[in-house]
Amino acid sequence: MENLSPREITTMFLALGVLLFCARLLGELARRLNQPSVLGEILAGILLGPTVLGALAPALNAALFPVRGGGALVLDGLTTLAIVLFLLVAGIEIDLATVWRQGKAAVLVALGGMLLPFSMGFAAAWWLPSLVGYQPGADRLAFALFIATALSISALPIIAKILMDLNIYRSDLGVIVVAAAVFNDLLGWLVFAVILGMVGADHGHGLHLAHTIWMTLGFTAAMLTVVPWLIHRLLPWIQAYASWPGGVLGFALSLCLFSAAFTEWLGIHAIFGSFLAGVALGHSRHLREQTRTTIEQFVSFIFAPLFFASIGLRVDFAAHFDLVLTLVVLLLAFSGKVTGSALGARLGGVPWREAWGTGFGMSAQGTMGIILGVLALQLGLISQEVFVSLVVMALVTSLVSGPMLQRILRLKKPRRFVDYLGSEGFVRQLRATSRRGAIGELATALAEGAGLQSEEVTRAVLAREQVMATGIGMGVAVPHARLEKLDQPLVGVGLSPIGIDFDAPDGIPAHLLCLILTPIQDDGAQLEILADIAATFRNEPLRDKALQVSGYTEFLALIRSERPA
Amino acid sequence: MENLSPREITTMFLALGVLLFCARLLGELARRLNQPSVLGEILAGILLGPTVLGALAPALNAALFPVRGGGALVLDGLTTLAIVLFLLVAGIEIDLATVWRQGKAAVLVALGGMLLPFSMGFAAAWWLPSLVGYQPGADRLAFALFIATALSISALPIIAKILMDLNIYRSDLGVIVVAAAVFNDLLGWLVFAVILGMVGADHGHGLHLAHTIWMTLGFTAAMLTVVPWLIHRLLPWIQAYASWPGGVLGFALSLCLFSAAFTEWLGIHAIFGSFLAGVALGHSRHLREQTRTTIEQFVSFIFAPLFFASIGLRVDFAAHFDLVLTLVVLLLAFSGKVTGSALGARLGGVPWREAWGTGFGMSAQGTMGIILGVLALQLGLISQEVFVSLVVMALVTSLVSGPMLQRILRLKKPRRFVDYLGSEGFVRQLRATSRRGAIGELATALAEGAGLQSEEVTRAVLAREQVMATGIGMGVAVPHARLEKLDQPLVGVGLSPIGIDFDAPDGIPAHLLCLILTPIQDDGAQLEILADIAATFRNEPLRDKALQVSGYTEFLALIRSERPA
Repeated sequence: MENLSPREITTMFLALGVLLFCARLLGELARRLNQPSVLGEILAGILLGPTVLGALAPALNAALFPVRGGGALVLDGLTTLAIVLFLLVAGIEIDLATVWRQGKAAVLVALGGMLLPFSMGFAAAWWLPSLVGYQPGADRLAFALFIATALSISALPIIAKILMDLNIYRSDLGVIVVAAAVFNDLLGWLVFAVILGMVGADHGHGLHLAHTIWMTLGFTAAMLTVVPWLIHRLLPWIQAYASWPGGVLGFALSLCLFSAAFTEWLGIHAIFGSFLAGVALGHSRHLREQTRTTIEQFVSFIFAPLFFASIGLRVDFAAHFDLVLTLVVLLLAFSGKVTGSALGARLGGVPWREAWGTGFGMSAQGTMGIILGVLALQLGLISQEVFVSLVVMALVTSLVSGPMLQRILRLKKPRRFVDYLGSEGFVRQLRATSRRGAIGELATALAEGAGLQSEEVTRAVLAREQVMATGIGMGVAVPHARLEKLDQPLVGVGLSPIGIDFDAPDGIPAHLLCLILTPIQDDGAQLEILADIAATFRNEPLRDKALQVSGYTEFLALIRSERPA
Repeated sequence: MENLSPREITTMFLALGVLLFCARLLGELARRLNQPSVLGEILAGILLGPTVLGALAPALNAALFPVRGGGALVLDGLTTLAIVLFLLVAGIEIDLATVWRQGKAAVLVALGGMLLPFSMGFAAAWWLPSLVGYQPGADRLAFALFIATALSISALPIIAKILMDLNIYRSDLGVIVVAAAVFNDLLGWLVFAVILGMVGADHGHGLHLAHTIWMTLGFTAAMLTVVPWLIHRLLPWIQAYASWPGGVLGFALSLCLFSAAFTEWLGIHAIFGSFLAGVALGHSRHLREQTRTTIEQFVSFIFAPLFFASIGLRVDFAAHFDLVLTLVVLLLAFSGKVTGSALGARLGGVPWREAWGTGFGMSAQGTMGIILGVLALQLGLISQEVFVSLVVMALVTSLVSGPMLQRILRLKKPRRFVDYLGSEGFVRQLRATSRRGAIGELATALAEGAGLQSEEVTRAVLAREQVMATGIGMGVAVPHARLEKLDQPLVGVGLSPIGIDFDAPDGIPAHLLCLILTPIQDDGAQLEILADIAATFRNEPLRDKALQVSGYTEFLALIRSERPA
């Protein structure tokens, strides 16, 4: 068997390590700025690829990410595998039943959000091809169809992520948006399959285009009807007789790989098969939550970043950036998608405000558009300029969707008490033995950092304490007060090894003290933070571990990892 | 960037799918026969490789697993990545503190279990090279050192797995065996690093052998002291400020890849680096259980089977099987390892019986020996005959270790009630409304399948019921009896939607009836099964789900997946 040389293996691991590390790092930075992490991941690739590193240190760039030979092939194979697995996860996350339930509205949103940008894109590419970067020699109909599809397909994983982040994934509007995006993407993939059949890369199976289309439709239908039914029967059997979770994991991944191989053979891309395998698998309630989580976490945090970062390795974004082209693509995609989806929602009986929310919810066009772009680029259907404009369009629409949705629907993210806990407000070991003393100690620590008068804070908290004691039981107390001078909430946490009586209903002295200060005009803050604290510390093992942390960072790490938002 | 052709991508996914599916399937079969699943996984590769499929259908074998070109390179890259990730997991599972704690005994076992087979192997290879398959032209000292190392290295992951399966992983003997295996493997790897340096494949860094050794030792020391300390400080910070578990996963995998790239560059293999990265990571108690589980499950059930199955693709086992050579290797490895380890344990103050147990516990030589063999084969250090004999030796020693350990220490696997529940003993919906009626219904169902008299069974169970009612609360009842005619326990389960009074301490009528029949001479069986049932159904959500299953298979799937052994 032909093997990689030790030098190629060294490069492979180094390249994967650098790619993964930078992608995760910039992904985290993006998240800190309240953006989807995929933005940072793509940026990492642009920095490491020809655009930046290639311009600054061409030799290093060429050594790390070779464009020819074994290293390049292995990287291509691995990123292809990565995106296939990512689409499996995207498929698993889909709930087919939801699609049928929200029937009418979802279909109208999907059709509106597909037809308008599709016709705008097709019209522009057909009548004004040079405006959207047509390069002479390419199949003109296929090009126009591709531009139309790329402008009308949505980014299901990003949309789902944004809706979950905003806590409206299971609301009526959320369900309509997700269902419409599913429908939209399935349609988009089918059109794309037709395009791929038209430009017909040689697959050596000699199938006629009509056959490819019929087999695609038949396979899709089977994966949405018979196969999910079969899987639903099969899973209990696997879980009963095979090791757990090895049996299910092996089955799910094998199905995904076979399905991917089949659609790739058909002449449409492998991701189409793995996406459908995911939908078929995710449909069964016998697929346990833990199995989903294992697949999802490994794929979302390891494989997906590798793929998205690898995008930037393929193209020089600076050399191929065309401002006019990018603006045209952005305008067509964004206006068409938002307006079309909103009109569809209104027709489906959704009030105007929510209809516009639906429109902006559908507007994220990140991941799928880029995947299509990579394929079209490899097939020579589009120029590098068009690819760059598609990636920029994907980035911008994904960036805008969340904040717009938040503004239109006037949503607020749930507030967690640790969001308002700074290192100065954390007291590892309270010295006080009385309720009054402990409150004073914590208030002083908190007030100093925030520029407040500690006496004033202590007085306000003690006044509240006299009205009603704040021991909530389980060894937790939540002294609190509303202050005029604050513009945002402040939380302090103190640990008392000996325990302080806070008159709790269960009589247990408090070892965990959370001091909550909120602005007087902010009605919801105090209640939200109180509820979060109570919900967090209802977990007994977490309470025990919290009392043993060595400092602020460990406390924060504990809360964030044991009770993720 | 150079890309794989659609035809190569199709083949890649198909080959991966076939490999994974067959490896998992045979792995499960091995497990059903109470053997480690790695045996089945290796066998799957032998069936799909030149040995069987290549002989029966050469064209199919060549198309699916090409030996040259892009497809072969990608498969080699992927399996290399797979084994690197598997060693990361093996490293994470190691507890450095354990190694120090059991200090003396573990070191003596490790030294004994290393020195005896090492000197036997070295002596044989040096004085009787033809006996152990020396091929003229190879470096004789390197060859002798390699044979000695291959015969003395153990298979940590398999040993750990066997100890866990037997429930003695945390016993004194278990700790000594694991600690000794860790020490043994670290030593073995270092010797192997020296060998690799001696035969010096070209890594292009032009390091002198002495430099390689010093850098290896320095790197190992750093990964066992400073790096774990740094990681322990870093992890809380990552968990506090990065997304969860993406931050930790990304960090762990990047560290593994960098470390692998470094040791590969040094001239020793990449797996050495990822193993040490695993040890360094696993040492921190801040690495949460869930993160370990996610990495471990994905790697053990997806990547590890892919690697172990790929072994069989490299060599024709039938053509290169040499019976005498294999027997010599097996004899040297097995007798040396078992006797050496047992003597070491006895010297360390372990009583004779446990000392022999330690010896057989150490005797599994599966995985590591094969990994070394693959490398040595690639370097031309050993012939295919020697490689085949090493693989067979690995298989046989792994196969023997568990049962021998079980016999010597007189261990019994914990018995689970579902092990004795057949489909005929499961009654989805009991029609009876009285205690007497329900017991009769269940006893009839159970007796028919087992060739017992149903009246006799019913009478025995009712007699026991009159002595003491068997409602144990939570809606569960466990009527039971001991019978003379049984040679192994029998369990029946019936679901009663209306609930039947079994005089439970909490007064709740029983919806879940478990009828337990045990042989009269088997003292422990009844108690063990009763305890297992009580422990299983203490879990309320599981109880609720159990009442809603549609049949026997779903019930079994539920118990096995929600409460894995």
